[in-house]
Amino acid sequence: MKDQMKDIVALCKRRGFIFAASDIYGGINGFWDYGPLGVELKNNLRDRWWHDMVIAPPIGPDGTPISIVGVDSSIIQNPNCWEASGHVGGFNDPMVDCRESKKRYRADHVFVLIPKDGEGVSFAFDKDAEDELIEKRLKKLAKGKSIDDFEREMLDQIPAANFNNIVGPDTKNKGTLTEPRQFNMMFHTYVGATASDDNKAYLRPETCAGIFLNFKNVVDSSRVKVPFGIAQIGKAFRNEVTPRNFIFRSREFEQMELEWFCEEEDVPKWFDFWVEQRTNFWLSLGVDKSALHFLDVPKDDLAHYSSRTIDVEYKFPFAAPGFDELEGIAHRGNYDLTQHQKHSGAKIEYYDQQENKRYLPHVIEPSTGLTRGVLALICEAYTVDENRPSGVYLNFHPSMAPKKAAILPLSAKPEHVEPAQKLYMELRNEFVVDLDIKQNIGKRYARQDEIGTPYCFTVDSETAEDNCVTVRDRNTMAQERIPLDKVKAFLREKINGG
Amino acid sequence: MKDQMKDIVALCKRRGFIFAASDIYGGINGFWDYGPLGVELKNNLRDRWWHDMVIAPPIGPDGTPISIVGVDSSIIQNPNCWEASGHVGGFNDPMVDCRESKKRYRADHVFVLIPKDGEGVSFAFDKDAEDELIEKRLKKLAKGKSIDDFEREMLDQIPAANFNNIVGPDTKNKGTLTEPRQFNMMFHTYVGATASDDNKAYLRPETCAGIFLNFKNVVDSSRVKVPFGIAQIGKAFRNEVTPRNFIFRSREFEQMELEWFCEEEDVPKWFDFWVEQRTNFWLSLGVDKSALHFLDVPKDDLAHYSSRTIDVEYKFPFAAPGFDELEGIAHRGNYDLTQHQKHSGAKIEYYDQQENKRYLPHVIEPSTGLTRGVLALICEAYTVDENRPSGVYLNFHPSMAPKKAAILPLSAKPEHVEPAQKLYMELRNEFVVDLDIKQNIGKRYARQDEIGTPYCFTVDSETAEDNCVTVRDRNTMAQERIPLDKVKAFLREKINGG
Repeated sequence: MKDQMKDIVALCKRRGFIFAASDIYGGINGFWDYGPLGVELKNNLRDRWWHDMVIAPPIGPDGTPISIVGVDSSIIQNPNCWEASGHVGGFNDPMVDCRESKKRYRADHVFVLIPKDGEGVSFAFDKDAEDELIEKRLKKLAKGKSIDDFEREMLDQIPAANFNNIVGPDTKNKGTLTEPRQFNMMFHTYVGATASDDNKAYLRPETCAGIFLNFKNVVDSSRVKVPFGIAQIGKAFRNEVTPRNFIFRSREFEQMELEWFCEEEDVPKWFDFWVEQRTNFWLSLGVDKSALHFLDVPKDDLAHYSSRTIDVEYKFPFAAPGFDELEGIAHRGNYDLTQHQKHSGAKIEYYDQQENKRYLPHVIEPSTGLTRGVLALICEAYTVDENRPSGVYLNFHPSMAPKKAAILPLSAKPEHVEPAQKLYMELRNEFVVDLDIKQNIGKRYARQDEIGTPYCFTVDSETAEDNCVTVRDRNTMAQERIPLDKVKAFLREKINGG
Repeated sequence: MKDQMKDIVALCKRRGFIFAASDIYGGINGFWDYGPLGVELKNNLRDRWWHDMVIAPPIGPDGTPISIVGVDSSIIQNPNCWEASGHVGGFNDPMVDCRESKKRYRADHVFVLIPKDGEGVSFAFDKDAEDELIEKRLKKLAKGKSIDDFEREMLDQIPAANFNNIVGPDTKNKGTLTEPRQFNMMFHTYVGATASDDNKAYLRPETCAGIFLNFKNVVDSSRVKVPFGIAQIGKAFRNEVTPRNFIFRSREFEQMELEWFCEEEDVPKWFDFWVEQRTNFWLSLGVDKSALHFLDVPKDDLAHYSSRTIDVEYKFPFAAPGFDELEGIAHRGNYDLTQHQKHSGAKIEYYDQQENKRYLPHVIEPSTGLTRGVLALICEAYTVDENRPSGVYLNFHPSMAPKKAAILPLSAKPEHVEPAQKLYMELRNEFVVDLDIKQNIGKRYARQDEIGTPYCFTVDSETAEDNCVTVRDRNTMAQERIPLDKVKAFLREKINGG
């Protein structure tokens, strides 16, 4: 399963889904660019979320549609808002450096093997290291000892006093790790002409702050009434110590976040509502239920203001046989609004006219990674099939596929090309379609399989006579002949009705 | 006209189009957030541009559709790419400070009145200062002199040697300006744990670099052939010395850029093609031809690699009676690709199989401000009308209006609300519609006028009997009765067919 990530990354580059940012300059660690197909896939997921949240929000428990509006806030905000949210003081990762390799690790991503007998050095490993690899390394560096001679402990759980003589994960000799130190994950910059502390500002580490900051302005301008939601999609930035796993943990990424504002007593009802809604969202995009795992975060691990958080995890290949986070649904209390009211000095309480009371509503936050969602859709679609020329195809749900259909004239002769161009012009205002003229038809089918196009329409010499095209189904490779004037209806039914 | 900007800014806040970023913290100069209606308007413009460029690109001079693909590149790239593009060395604004007021000015945004007789001090003014204001100030600070006693010169044209004793534009006494110094407009940050020069990176000052960086990857993965285009929409950042004019000159903004790659000999043909296409784009969104001005940038002002640049200017109220830049259409030669090939060491030349030759194509770049476009659409739509309760309405083209229609039950009685909810549910999967239940109908019409909703459908007591609703036209305020089952067709024709 872990090797599958390599194949997926290679396909993504080869077919134009995702490239390393600044690839020709050797890249830049933790940053990725979306190619022609990646951007369409990402836009499809983005637009579907926005549609389901803001344009046509779900039907609430009372049978009528709930109320959600959107915002799009700035990446750079007044730095005081990050003091209020706790990010300046607390958004830290514990980090260690290796004295030999100079590499850097997050202490909570590394475990240590400590000798049970108290003799000799300890050895650190990447948290996903496999036993086979561990034994191999011990054989080399800790002669005569095996994995059974050690206790396993996460690096960030080891008291500072005991922190000595731990050999780093990537050293060839016995280079040791420095003590962990806290590292703030917000990127900073300077607004204005001088790079002084007075001008320091931050790139937002999450999009939700922009929602809380606009709570009052939205209430005052939009006639919304509690309960209601504010949604936002946008970029966020985290100076990750160790970006990894392709676009899963990158330094620049996109989020889709909803803050659902309700009265405190209604929190349990709405929490369950949102878990159900968000699960259905992923299922409707073709994600199999068995590929999702719901982690009910233990009470002891919750923030003081939260009564419950559920992480929706996906079976990313790099996490096999486990899962890793795709989305979090968190009760955040009214912590954020309280903090912003306190730090800004502005009165941002909601006024309930009917009850004649002012209060700061509680919040339930379904927070999704858009770029992680793209990765989940690609992983879910990736299907090995040795019975076809490409050896693999992307089984996207038609609504998510970057191209809904390809129109392929059998040859470059005008009698094939002209009807194909005509069909392309008819379809392209309603569907994202590809017109691909040259190359032999087998290679073109293979390409469309690899990019996950659900339907290929082939124009051949009979088309002029019978006004029909051959439609090929991506998954079954079955072909059937359908009239040219039925192609639109065919696609409508398959894509929107399916 | 200049006062109209104040009214527009106020309406944008009151109705939820645009708020100052971090408003409750007193804002942050040069940053803006988009509220519930602003984000829909911006998305409409974004999606229309993307559709017209990438999904259904224009028909070329040969009668067949041209080929354009999209990308979405990272805001932070390898810093070497900004050395290559010239932004590290040259993306500077000349900047002066006032010794008294401590305010900062762009030297190219300020002119100076220099005494013709060589006696006494010079006075600086904002480039848009009106004669009346100048005379008033001279009366106070340069007793006995009038505007005719001075020569006018732009501050950045004054040689350093002559740069002394210039009184700043906002000083109450005779506080003078410092000499201009160059100020790089790129925001910088640090990627990794240490804020050292080795880790310095930049927020992109324009989106086009991400296109050039991906030129080779796109060619290799997408089967495109010269001529073709790569399009991108995304945020860019400039540490403007003096952000101003609402969202026109902000520090964080969005661009929609196309790089059209063609052979050098075809540049004139494609240049004309793109000027025509881009003009038609704005006209199709309801911008009046008289509101646009085409500035053919004089040869002497062009970069050495460019044969032509046309700025498409819009009559923004703050520029009255003039215009200011909305979009630029520039021939960039093959300067960018040449620079990136040289600095990266990667071979990124295009290979023309038929001609068996390798070359770096020339580029024509239609570069549009998405956020400036939003401002142009709002300014164009803003219509004063004393004959209606709101006193003003936004005359958006239906395809750009944030809400296509409002559904208004005459009262909150179930016999009005239930058919309205039913109609809302029928329409909302196809159109962005508002269901607004409470408040008297006049106030609700006024609100829809102010947010630019082209059609209001009112459900009243007769609806149950005749299965009809009253439709009110935003611009004419005319009302007519139409059958419920014709509403969808009515909207389809008005919005898509209009």
